[in-house]
Amino acid sequence: MENINIEEIITNIREKLEKKDLNSAREILENMQPQDIAILFKELTDEEVVKLYRILSKDLAVETFAEMDSDSQENLIKALTDKELKEVIDDLFTDDTVDLIEEMPSNVVKRILRTIPPEERKLINEFLRYPENSAGSIMTDEFVDLKENMTVKDAFDKIRKVSIDKETIYTCYVLSENRKLLGILTVKELLLSNMEDSIKNLMNRNVIYGTTLEDQEEVANKLKKYDLLALPIVDNEKRLVGIITVDDAIDVLEEENTEDFQKMAAIRPNDEEYFKTSVFKHAKSRILWLLFLMLSATITGKIITNYEQAFEALPLLVAFIPMIMGTGGNCGSQASTLIIRGLATNEIQPKDIFKAIWKETRVAILVGVVLSIVNGIIVMWQYNDLLLAVVVGITLICTVLLAKVLGCILPILAKKLRLDPAIMASPLITTIVDICSVLIYFVVATSILNI
Amino acid sequence: MENINIEEIITNIREKLEKKDLNSAREILENMQPQDIAILFKELTDEEVVKLYRILSKDLAVETFAEMDSDSQENLIKALTDKELKEVIDDLFTDDTVDLIEEMPSNVVKRILRTIPPEERKLINEFLRYPENSAGSIMTDEFVDLKENMTVKDAFDKIRKVSIDKETIYTCYVLSENRKLLGILTVKELLLSNMEDSIKNLMNRNVIYGTTLEDQEEVANKLKKYDLLALPIVDNEKRLVGIITVDDAIDVLEEENTEDFQKMAAIRPNDEEYFKTSVFKHAKSRILWLLFLMLSATITGKIITNYEQAFEALPLLVAFIPMIMGTGGNCGSQASTLIIRGLATNEIQPKDIFKAIWKETRVAILVGVVLSIVNGIIVMWQYNDLLLAVVVGITLICTVLLAKVLGCILPILAKKLRLDPAIMASPLITTIVDICSVLIYFVVATSILNI
Repeated sequence: MENINIEEIITNIREKLEKKDLNSAREILENMQPQDIAILFKELTDEEVVKLYRILSKDLAVETFAEMDSDSQENLIKALTDKELKEVIDDLFTDDTVDLIEEMPSNVVKRILRTIPPEERKLINEFLRYPENSAGSIMTDEFVDLKENMTVKDAFDKIRKVSIDKETIYTCYVLSENRKLLGILTVKELLLSNMEDSIKNLMNRNVIYGTTLEDQEEVANKLKKYDLLALPIVDNEKRLVGIITVDDAIDVLEEENTEDFQKMAAIRPNDEEYFKTSVFKHAKSRILWLLFLMLSATITGKIITNYEQAFEALPLLVAFIPMIMGTGGNCGSQASTLIIRGLATNEIQPKDIFKAIWKETRVAILVGVVLSIVNGIIVMWQYNDLLLAVVVGITLICTVLLAKVLGCILPILAKKLRLDPAIMASPLITTIVDICSVLIYFVVATSILNI
Repeated sequence: MENINIEEIITNIREKLEKKDLNSAREILENMQPQDIAILFKELTDEEVVKLYRILSKDLAVETFAEMDSDSQENLIKALTDKELKEVIDDLFTDDTVDLIEEMPSNVVKRILRTIPPEERKLINEFLRYPENSAGSIMTDEFVDLKENMTVKDAFDKIRKVSIDKETIYTCYVLSENRKLLGILTVKELLLSNMEDSIKNLMNRNVIYGTTLEDQEEVANKLKKYDLLALPIVDNEKRLVGIITVDDAIDVLEEENTEDFQKMAAIRPNDEEYFKTSVFKHAKSRILWLLFLMLSATITGKIITNYEQAFEALPLLVAFIPMIMGTGGNCGSQASTLIIRGLATNEIQPKDIFKAIWKETRVAILVGVVLSIVNGIIVMWQYNDLLLAVVVGITLICTVLLAKVLGCILPILAKKLRLDPAIMASPLITTIVDICSVLIYFVVATSILNI
C-alpha cells in the first residue's frame, strides 16, 4: 500500500454515503488500515462516523475503535446501543480499556463498566489503581502463559486455543503454580524444537522484566535496549501480572521525547494534544517559567544601570549587548542540548563530567576565538576602534567559555541529583550566562577603556 | 533480570581473569545479555576483551559483536584470526555487516570482504550503494519468503528449515516467481489455520510497504503508525529486496529525534557520539550558526545606536533591553517547539496554520498582559515611573505576540516548502524577534516619552 490520500477518500466515501451505496463504502474501508480509518473518522461528522462504523467488519471495527482519539470515541459510544458497546469493550485489550476509562467522562464510564463482567471489572479496577506513568498503568494482561511440565505440543495446542485474544503470542511466559515468572520461550524456539520436548528444558530462565511500579520510561528503554517485542511486568512477589508490547513502548519513548522538548523550551510538560489544550492551559504551562526568566532578566538590567557612567561616556557600548547576550545564549543551548540528549540516550554518563568539561572548554576556546576575530574585523571596519574590538573580543571568549561549561555542568549535576537534566536547558542557562556576560562586558570595558 | 551493576561485574570478571578461572568468567558472561556484554567490553582493555570474546558461546559471541561500537569492533577484529573473523561475519545479519563495512577503515574492510563468498559479496555491494538515510541503507535480507501455491504445512516446513538464520520469522512474505511482493502472512495466522489451507487464500494482500529510496524516517514512521514488527521494502519493480525490523526503526526514530534536538539548538546535525566527535568537528558544527546569529545580532546593535539620543536622555531605558529580548526569545522558542514537535508527530498538519495562529494569538495576549502587569508593578515599586511602566508593558505585549505568531508561522511555512521545520527553531526566531522588539521598544519609548 502506498501512502494514502485522505482528502480523496473523504470525497469518495461521502459520495457513496449520499448515494446510500453502503456496499461500496464498506469496500473502501475494508481495504484501509484501522489507523487510517481513525484519521478519516476525525474529518467526518459524528453521524457519518456512526453510519460507517456500523458497516465495518467486527475485527476492523474494534481495531479502529482502539486507534480513535478520545473525542471521537466518546461521540461514537454515545451513538452505540448497549449491545454494540458491549461487543466493542469485550474485544478491546485490557490496556486499551483502561486508557478508554481514564479518558471518558463519568457517565460514559458507568455505561462502559456495566458491559464488563464482575470478574474482569475487578481486574480493570486493579489496573486503574497503578500510578500514572508507571509500568503497571500501560501494561496489558493478554499474554500466553505456559506451565513447566508442558511439552512443545501442549504449548502449541494452548497457543492455538488462546492466541486469538492475545496481544502477542510470539513470546510465551512460563509460570509456576502461584503464577511466578520462571522463564520465557519464543514461538521461534518452539518451532525449532521437537513436539515431545519439555518446556522446562527449553525455556530461557534469564528473563529481562520490569516491575509494576517502575517508571514507564525505564521499561520502554529496556525494550529498546534489549530489542524485545514484549517485556513481562511482575509484582512485588515476582508474579507475572502483565506485559508491555513494543508498539506501546514506542509511544512512551515518543511521549518522553516530547516532554524533553517542552522542558527544554521552558514549558511545563503537558501530554495533551496541541489543539485540544485550551488557551488558558497553554498560557498556564508557559507563564511560570516566563515570569521567572523575566525577573532574573531584571537583574541583568540592574547591572547595566550600575554601569550607566560607562555607556554615557561611550554610548556605542550598548550596541554590543544584544550580540554578546545572544551569542552566550546560543552557545549555552548548543552545549546543554548535546549533553542533555547524550544523558537521555545513555551516551554520556554522569561520571564523564570532567571529560565533558574538558571537551567543551576546548570547543569553547576554538569557537570563541573565531567569533572574536570575525567580530573584531567588523568593529574595525565599522568604527575603526581597536580597543573596542579588544573589549568585545575578550568578553565574547569569556562568555562562550562560561556558556559552554555551564551548559555541560548543569545538566550532569541535575542527573547526579536525580533531577531531570532537561530542566537545566537553554532558558535557565541563558539567564545565568546573560547576567555574567553583561558583568564581564562592563568590567572589561571600564578597565580597558578607562571609563 | 534486575538492572545490572556494571562496576561490580568488572571487578568480578577481572578477578576471574587474574586467577585464570575462565570457566567462572564464562559463566558470568553467559548469564548476561549481549547488549550488556558490549557495554562491559567498552570498559575493559583490548586484551581482556579478546580473551573474554573467545570463551563466549558462538551465538552469544556473534550477538555481542553486533552490539559493540565500531571502535571495539575494530580492535577485536584486529586480534581475531581469519577463521574466527569468518565465523563472525558468516553469522551477522546483512544489515549489521553493511553497517560494519561502512564504519571500518579500508584495510579491515578488505579482510572482512575476503571472508565473504562472491555471491554474497555482490549483494553486500548492492546494499552499500543505497544512499545514506534511505530505507535501503538500513534494511536486511534475512526474511522468510513463501510461494502462493504452498500449503500451511509447506510454510511451516520452510520456516523450520530457514528460521535459524532469519532476523524475524513472525511475518512471512509471499512472493511471485519473479519475487514481486504479493501478500503477507503472520505466524499467528498460520498457527490458527489448518495444515492443508493454501497460502494463496490465507495471505493478506493489503500490504504496507516501503521503497528502497524512501527516507529512513518515513519508513520508521510507518512501522510506528501501523504497529508493525517488520516493514517489507521493495524496489522500483515492486520486487521484495529487504525488510526493516521494529528494533531498527526505534533506533532511526531516536536518531531523528536527536537530529531535531540539535537543529533546534542551532547545531548542524551530526550522528557521531558526543565523545567520539573531535573538538574541531564539534566547533565546526556549531560555528556557522553562531556566526550567522552573531551577524544578525549586530543589526539589533545598529538599531540601538540609531536611538542613542533616546537612552542618552533616559539611560534607564537600556536596563530593560535584556528583559524584553529575553522574554521575546523565550516566548518564541516555546511556540516554535510546540509547533515543530506537533508537526513531527503529525499532531499538527500544515493546513492547520490559521487555527494555530489563532490559538497562539490568544495565548500571547493572555501571557503578554500578565507579564506586563507584573513588570509594571516592579517598575512602579523600583522607579515609580508610570510612563516607563506603560512603555515597557506595551513593548512586552507586542514582543510576545510577535514571538508567538512567528514561532507558529515559520515552522509550518518550512514544512509547506518541504524544508525541515526544526531549522526554524528558537535561535532563528529569537534573532528576528530581537530585531523587531528593540525597534518596537524605541519607537514606543520615543513617542510616549517624547524623547
